[in-house]
Amino acid sequence: MAILVVGSVAFDSIETPHGKVDHCLGGAATHFALAASYFTDVRVIAVVGEDFLPKHEAVFTARGIDTRGIERAAGLSFHWTGAYEGNLSEAQTLGTDLNVFERFEPKIPEAYTDSEYLFLANIDPVLQARVRSQMKNVRMVCGDTMNYWIKDHAANLALVLRELDVLLINDGEARMLSGETNSVRAAEKVLAMGPKSLVVKHGEYGATAFFAQRSFSSVAVVPRPFRAPALPLSEVVDPTGAGDSFAGGFYGYLASQPELTPAVFRTAMFYGGVMGSFAVERFGTERLQAVTREEIDTRFELFREISHLDSAV
Amino acid sequence: MAILVVGSVAFDSIETPHGKVDHCLGGAATHFALAASYFTDVRVIAVVGEDFLPKHEAVFTARGIDTRGIERAAGLSFHWTGAYEGNLSEAQTLGTDLNVFERFEPKIPEAYTDSEYLFLANIDPVLQARVRSQMKNVRMVCGDTMNYWIKDHAANLALVLRELDVLLINDGEARMLSGETNSVRAAEKVLAMGPKSLVVKHGEYGATAFFAQRSFSSVAVVPRPFRAPALPLSEVVDPTGAGDSFAGGFYGYLASQPELTPAVFRTAMFYGGVMGSFAVERFGTERLQAVTREEIDTRFELFREISHLDSAV
Repeated sequence: MAILVVGSVAFDSIETPHGKVDHCLGGAATHFALAASYFTDVRVIAVVGEDFLPKHEAVFTARGIDTRGIERAAGLSFHWTGAYEGNLSEAQTLGTDLNVFERFEPKIPEAYTDSEYLFLANIDPVLQARVRSQMKNVRMVCGDTMNYWIKDHAANLALVLRELDVLLINDGEARMLSGETNSVRAAEKVLAMGPKSLVVKHGEYGATAFFAQRSFSSVAVVPRPFRAPALPLSEVVDPTGAGDSFAGGFYGYLASQPELTPAVFRTAMFYGGVMGSFAVERFGTERLQAVTREEIDTRFELFREISHLDSAV
Repeated sequence: MAILVVGSVAFDSIETPHGKVDHCLGGAATHFALAASYFTDVRVIAVVGEDFLPKHEAVFTARGIDTRGIERAAGLSFHWTGAYEGNLSEAQTLGTDLNVFERFEPKIPEAYTDSEYLFLANIDPVLQARVRSQMKNVRMVCGDTMNYWIKDHAANLALVLRELDVLLINDGEARMLSGETNSVRAAEKVLAMGPKSLVVKHGEYGATAFFAQRSFSSVAVVPRPFRAPALPLSEVVDPTGAGDSFAGGFYGYLASQPELTPAVFRTAMFYGGVMGSFAVERFGTERLQAVTREEIDTRFELFREISHLDSAV
């Protein structure tokens, strides 16, 4: 079933120990949409500037992604400049040019209104809430956020959290949002803010899912936490978009399944890790544009093998 | 089959957000021996002072641990003072009184010479090498070390690393030993120093095993890395000895099995996590003295459940 994603389509200028790229296609909605496109139909709502050319749009359409919701505005697209050092675990933001994104007013095309799965990528929670309220009939809402909104826009964010089936954030964001350093107590506090479930990403250590009492699970008991591994990689070329690619693999798989069960949720966690592991192998969206479904499923088996007691070898 | 462990039997004075204890029984060999005692016979080589009383020895003997190798010396036992803050991920050492440990000369009792499994806990690599060379017929050698030896005793440590079937260290130690921030390249470099396998502990994120080309595995190919989870715990009372307890559960299970296969190694990683998760629930050795085999196996199933795709719930 179709996923509607609202978020940034942007250009990134990135420097890592492996090299440097200038103005490559990026943005949370881009990484998410590409990763999810291997599992289900994806529709994008975003705003871009005059520097967004047909070749950039072709990156989406080549993967069958619906771009009718990508609005063109006068000016330049959102541009992020960042660098990574050491073990590439944390980005250093060198510049954020919001450009056309500054006056982003998400508009939902008529053709998108039947989308059953909504993904609110990391944007102003006021805009997340506005999109959510217009999509009355969605089956599931999943969202992301970041330190900036947690710190300075807490009240607006609180309204969004109440509406979420899944909140996808990283360790640092979970600690900041909850004010707790212990990961389990942090998860409990975040779940008390509204989300039915919480997926906390640990970078190279994988991710953990936590479920609330009022979990949407079809089973009578609340599922236990679930830990999915990440793949030990000898070379991380560019971690930009890894979290959004995780979200795309995770939510894309969920949306492709007829029913949400604990087993489906767990499998989705693994597919999230798989898509994240591909994303970081090349700069920008290069790897996610060209991966095959066969490669995805081979890597899924590898994730199983490195984490399951009954692996073949 | 019996494990011979050489290392510290000590007293710890610890402060964590959950309280404070003064001179409780501790030391790497103590935590290791208690954890391993639930799986196989354990023999300890260590030195203690006059403050080591019958009630302390009873902690070992109550678990069937052979204490004939615990030498009594004039003076006080090794005493460590430490504190934990925040998410309790790192200890702050406030004091290290080596006392009788300063002139520790490990002596192997005749009754210990048929031990098939040797564990070299974190002590001076010169002593580790000396014990290793006296135990010619062991089937397997597993060892630990720490930043201090890696930094200032590299040449001595190098001699020990060549002799190891398994090196058990944490992320920071792996980075320091290899000079690499990437965990896979760090593992490759460490394995090139000699150990046939490397288990890197990630604290609350579990542990990863890496295998060398000349791996002792009975299968033709080198096993892939394997990731074992840690249990998300809402309360960590005292993390002191968690790593040694992991080592005890891991190596105790290995030593209890007739053959070392990749599946046995993976299961051992899980039992390591299980024993580590018990250790941190109370101060000092309290929890490891009183856990039952049934609790251990129930928790093993919990570890499987939170990490396996085919879990029941």
